Amino acid sequence: MDKTPLPFAKLMGLNITEVTPERVTAELKVRNDLWTRPAILHGGAIMAFADTVGAYATVANLPEGTTTTTIESKTNFFAAVPAGDTAKAECTPLHRGRTTMVWQTRISRGDGKLAAIVTQTQLVLPGKR
Amino acid sequence: MDKTPLPFAKLMGLNITEVTPERVTAELKVRNDLWTRPAILHGGAIMAFADTVGAYATVANLPEGTTTTTIESKTNFFAAVPAGDTAKAECTPLHRGRTTMVWQTRISRGDGKLAAIVTQTQLVLPGKR
Amino acid sequence: MDKTPLPFAKLMGLNITEVTPERVTAELKVRNDLWTRPAILHGGAIMAFADTVGAYATVANLPEGTTTTTIESKTNFFAAVPAGDTAKAECTPLHRGRTTMVWQTRISRGDGKLAAIVTQTQLVLPGKR
Amino acid sequence: MDKTPLPFAKLMGLNITEVTPERVTAELKVRNDLWTRPAILHGGAIMAFADTVGAYATVANLPEGTTTTTIESKTNFFAAVPAGDTAKAECTPLHRGRTTMVWQTRISRGDGKLAAIVTQTQLVLPGKR
Repeated sequence: MDKTPLPFAKLMGLNITEVTPERVTAELKVRNDLWTRPAILHGGAIMAFADTVGAYATVANLPEGTTTTTIESKTNFFAAVPAGDTAKAECTPLHRGRTTMVWQTRISRGDGKLAAIVTQTQLVLPGKR
Repeated sequence: MDKTPLPFAKLMGLNITEVTPERVTAELKVRNDLWTRPAILHGGAIMAFADTVGAYATVANLPEGTTTTTIESKTNFFAAVPAGDTAKAECTPLHRGRTTMVWQTRISRGDGKLAAIVTQTQLVLPGKR
Repeated sequence: MDKTPLPFAKLMGLNITEVTPERVTAELKVRNDLWTRPAILHGGAIMAFADTVGAYATVANLPEGTTTTTIESKTNFFAAVPAGDTAKAECTPLHRGRTTMVWQTRISRGDGKLAAIVTQTQLVLPGKR
Repeated sequence: MDKTPLPFAKLMGLNITEVTPERVTAELKVRNDLWTRPAILHGGAIMAFADTVGAYATVANLPEGTTTTTIESKTNFFAAVPAGDTAKAECTPLHRGRTTMVWQTRISRGDGKLAAIVTQTQLVLPGKR
């Protein structure tokens, strides 16, 4: 897989730490330009973080001659990720079919507490990546 | 309302164009550091864009002595927003109660086509903003 | 379209009142066997009501030689529907593409108040209905 | 806890098999009045099944003097549950806070295959059950 970071992932500074067809992990340092007010990781940054990780997971499972698009994504937020902390993402499959894949990404804080869960559906389409 | 841009909104370059209790609008230029691959607006950037707009809408409705947190957010994606285009967001209320507010944000492209719809639930909590 | 009621829709007693490609409406009387405790319409019955209406809307738009399956559904609940009331559903399209259709169904009470909104994604597949 | 079946759960014929604060399980026989067309378990029945199980799980965790309402629910569908089969539900917590609880319910078929996952948010409110 091409591991050149996607532009928006690069802007956020996220770091993919493992890519296998069964699991993708990544880290995101809560830099001060990723804050909302108060100084915690912006919920939008959490969703963008998970979305990127889910895309890597999908690509790691795409058959030859297919491409993918995200059709929907759902996030539940449980706890804030404080400034300076490093959020971790772990993405595992709920479903890997021919037409759709569904991924669930757990976002946790440095202290291990669950911060958010993101579930996203990827459509698998004929086409060139 | 304090209109100093939130740090992550500033990083993305989003521009709030209207804030009333009934409607918040904003624009986001599809800069090349907001791309995924291919060169379209990253789905995560779309979600972060809407999340920010929904937060403004909530704050514009918060009673004195209350604060808010996003508890969940759901996005449906319909069409890609191409590089160089300017995405527009329009956020209107589905529900404004004492305990929760639910906002729906339509993200459209420069040509007017609907790109995504984001629905988010905000919890209203006692506390200082 | 075959308008013989689906078995589960029949069990619940729901009544389809209009089917066009742009809009499907229906009614559901809050019979006492549709209650949760307290005596209001069960949230699950609301979701089943909307799901049925969304399926009719999809079928009214399916090209020849295709079939459909629901891949995901999201409900926001705003207000209870009291015992003895009649809930109304109105389903309109958010997206009608070749591969997916997305429908939004507003469930309202007899007094016109919005009770819930359900958004569901239908996959369009080759095959015989 | 009062285990008298809720009216709608009774109409559907669902059977709660275990209730602890950490886990609720239940079964639902795919009777012919729970079908959609073709003859598989109606998606709405799956959502109603999970909703009921999540409500039991919430009640098993409610502090004295509080009550609950479902504010949102999201379902991903993966596989059909055939006529005559018995669907099983297993509900476990994603989050149990003072203000909200979030439950995830896995619906599986008799052959063990995952049919759907339902994630629902319960608001915890002061009041009498």
